[in-house]
Amino acid sequence: MNPAETAARGLAAVRGKHPMVHHITNSVVMNLTANITLCLGAAPVMAACIQESAEMVRHAGALLLNIGTLDPALVKSMIAAGNAANSAGIPVILDPVGTGATLLRTEAAFTLLKELDISVICGNAGEILALAGADGKVRGVDSMERLDRRVDVVSAYAGMLDCVIAVTGEVDIVTDGTRVVRVSNGHPLMGYVTGTGCGATTAIACFAAAVDDPLEAAAGALICYGIAGEAAAAAASGPGTFVPYFLDALAGLDSGMVARLARAEELC
Amino acid sequence: MNPAETAARGLAAVRGKHPMVHHITNSVVMNLTANITLCLGAAPVMAACIQESAEMVRHAGALLLNIGTLDPALVKSMIAAGNAANSAGIPVILDPVGTGATLLRTEAAFTLLKELDISVICGNAGEILALAGADGKVRGVDSMERLDRRVDVVSAYAGMLDCVIAVTGEVDIVTDGTRVVRVSNGHPLMGYVTGTGCGATTAIACFAAAVDDPLEAAAGALICYGIAGEAAAAAASGPGTFVPYFLDALAGLDSGMVARLARAEELC
Amino acid sequence: MNPAETAARGLAAVRGKHPMVHHITNSVVMNLTANITLCLGAAPVMAACIQESAEMVRHAGALLLNIGTLDPALVKSMIAAGNAANSAGIPVILDPVGTGATLLRTEAAFTLLKELDISVICGNAGEILALAGADGKVRGVDSMERLDRRVDVVSAYAGMLDCVIAVTGEVDIVTDGTRVVRVSNGHPLMGYVTGTGCGATTAIACFAAAVDDPLEAAAGALICYGIAGEAAAAAASGPGTFVPYFLDALAGLDSGMVARLARAEELC
Repeated sequence: MNPAETAARGLAAVRGKHPMVHHITNSVVMNLTANITLCLGAAPVMAACIQESAEMVRHAGALLLNIGTLDPALVKSMIAAGNAANSAGIPVILDPVGTGATLLRTEAAFTLLKELDISVICGNAGEILALAGADGKVRGVDSMERLDRRVDVVSAYAGMLDCVIAVTGEVDIVTDGTRVVRVSNGHPLMGYVTGTGCGATTAIACFAAAVDDPLEAAAGALICYGIAGEAAAAAASGPGTFVPYFLDALAGLDSGMVARLARAEELC
Repeated sequence: MNPAETAARGLAAVRGKHPMVHHITNSVVMNLTANITLCLGAAPVMAACIQESAEMVRHAGALLLNIGTLDPALVKSMIAAGNAANSAGIPVILDPVGTGATLLRTEAAFTLLKELDISVICGNAGEILALAGADGKVRGVDSMERLDRRVDVVSAYAGMLDCVIAVTGEVDIVTDGTRVVRVSNGHPLMGYVTGTGCGATTAIACFAAAVDDPLEAAAGALICYGIAGEAAAAAASGPGTFVPYFLDALAGLDSGMVARLARAEELC
Repeated sequence: MNPAETAARGLAAVRGKHPMVHHITNSVVMNLTANITLCLGAAPVMAACIQESAEMVRHAGALLLNIGTLDPALVKSMIAAGNAANSAGIPVILDPVGTGATLLRTEAAFTLLKELDISVICGNAGEILALAGADGKVRGVDSMERLDRRVDVVSAYAGMLDCVIAVTGEVDIVTDGTRVVRVSNGHPLMGYVTGTGCGATTAIACFAAAVDDPLEAAAGALICYGIAGEAAAAAASGPGTFVPYFLDALAGLDSGMVARLARAEELC
């Protein structure tokens, strides 16, 4: 895979297909992630209650599940929507926000992984490693200081789950257990804005709705997202002005820019 | 009616009366629509649960009901608040977000229309036509490509419901079944920002809290809203920077500008 | 107390300790207050449901309770989290949004004050006086036009509750019943942006997580918050552009600026 070309092609696919992305997500980031979806060229819909969450799936090209503000009823609704997505062959993308922080979140993440066929999990290192390390399922989680150690653990976990895992951070790692892509695009200012992690998962869901290979979708989305972050950071005077510039940059991305500015590589 | 003068007078009334507008609305747009309310010169309050939704009505000059993120308990709370508003003679404004997309939303919209006396319904063409066309209540919904056909159908539906209907889009149509106003203000960039449709309904609620005639309130609000959108689009470099400039433009509107920049006409 | 130095020291403490602040707050302001938390140098977490609200407290340096969008289940969850915070010795900060507007809110505020040990209450004059005046607990609430009368009433109430009370407005008053600090920083534009009051309480929670004396935390936070508001108003062209500039200004504050720009005094 040539990550730069994959990202450029993925963006063109999202822009061309204008897919609807169904979000069942947390209350803090709803507005931001709806705007991220629009700026990438997709269309957001958010229907959280169990009376309509599964039915809404029939309009969607991807389903995003984000457990950032949770209650037990929402988990049931996520499972209903996720089953509908699985039946329809629509990719399900999971953002396990706060896994490890409370029992409710950790159990919710495990329940969703057990009940549903998840295409991509996207979270920060702490969340992914909490997921991988709980119950001792994946060894070595406790000493993840070195990036190469982290890649090994995440890759093993992705292989075990048979899905793509994206670990976001200063450098993003995307792997399906066999292939590993490292994405260096992005900017530290993104860490000072709430919802930029959730927004990365939204970008992956938009790409997954338009691109067949979930690894290509995830890597391409993170490259585009990081490039927009770099452009926004160059224009912004702080984390507040970053947000409007970031949305402008996402909307202004084109395939040529993406191919030129991508900093990503497939590891051997 | 002279729409430009109506809009200018309406804005002055909102600024002069500073009415409170009670929103029971969706989680995605709450922050944006609260800020739109403030920028127009009204005051937002949001009290969604049934234990206080009706009681809060006594402080308000209008009640806005938006079904964009819904659950059955919220529909009951909307009915309780709506009944209180009807008893107090306060206008109730409905935004039937997503009507036609799921059974829950379509049924909620019908239940609200049946149980409450609604002053203005504001939605996009898809939502209004789903509402009008369901159960075959209004004929001809299936072939709405031509604007004149659409005006006929919406006008007939408004007459049947005895309320004002505003259809937002590239050109907005506002009708009470007899009079029809066409508003051309606005900018395509508004379609790339989540909540701009919901915000238009918020603007109508602000005007309806300060202006007696709901048709004049709706037309005047959409003219002002569109003018602010044009000003914001001229300043913005994309959908992200559009939002702060749009709120600035709403706050900066004055009656002279509105009278000068309105592009609207009453149809015969 | 030298308020300017207190504020500068407080900011340095927040930046140095990077505390986690747990918010159980209203849906309208979640995104804004999470960003305010980040820009001040703390880390936000929001876990509202009773299945995790208390458990999440163990990660936090302060707990903020805001009743701006309420339901009975949320009050129970606030009590559970508040009890956990009290047991752990973590300060609990209360924003009694809308107290006096509905019975649910007034009762919720009283229940939280009765069940929990609250460190700081922060609200506007109407909310604080509704709280103080209900049940005739504090006399003289009905004629609070003069600032000196208001200081007396609030101070008496703070003494009675044995907590710090911050009354936000054109001039902020912070008192523990003995000491009284008056803060003049801030800008009128903040009144046209939803959530700036809630954000002030968030700032207090961030400072309370890093500073031992709750009076110093509250006064220092409001000084810093007001200085950032002044800087943002100087850069903004209205309430819309104010928000991103305000977040930039919060992130850009440093102790030297704060000590230089503070306009606050301890009253005798």
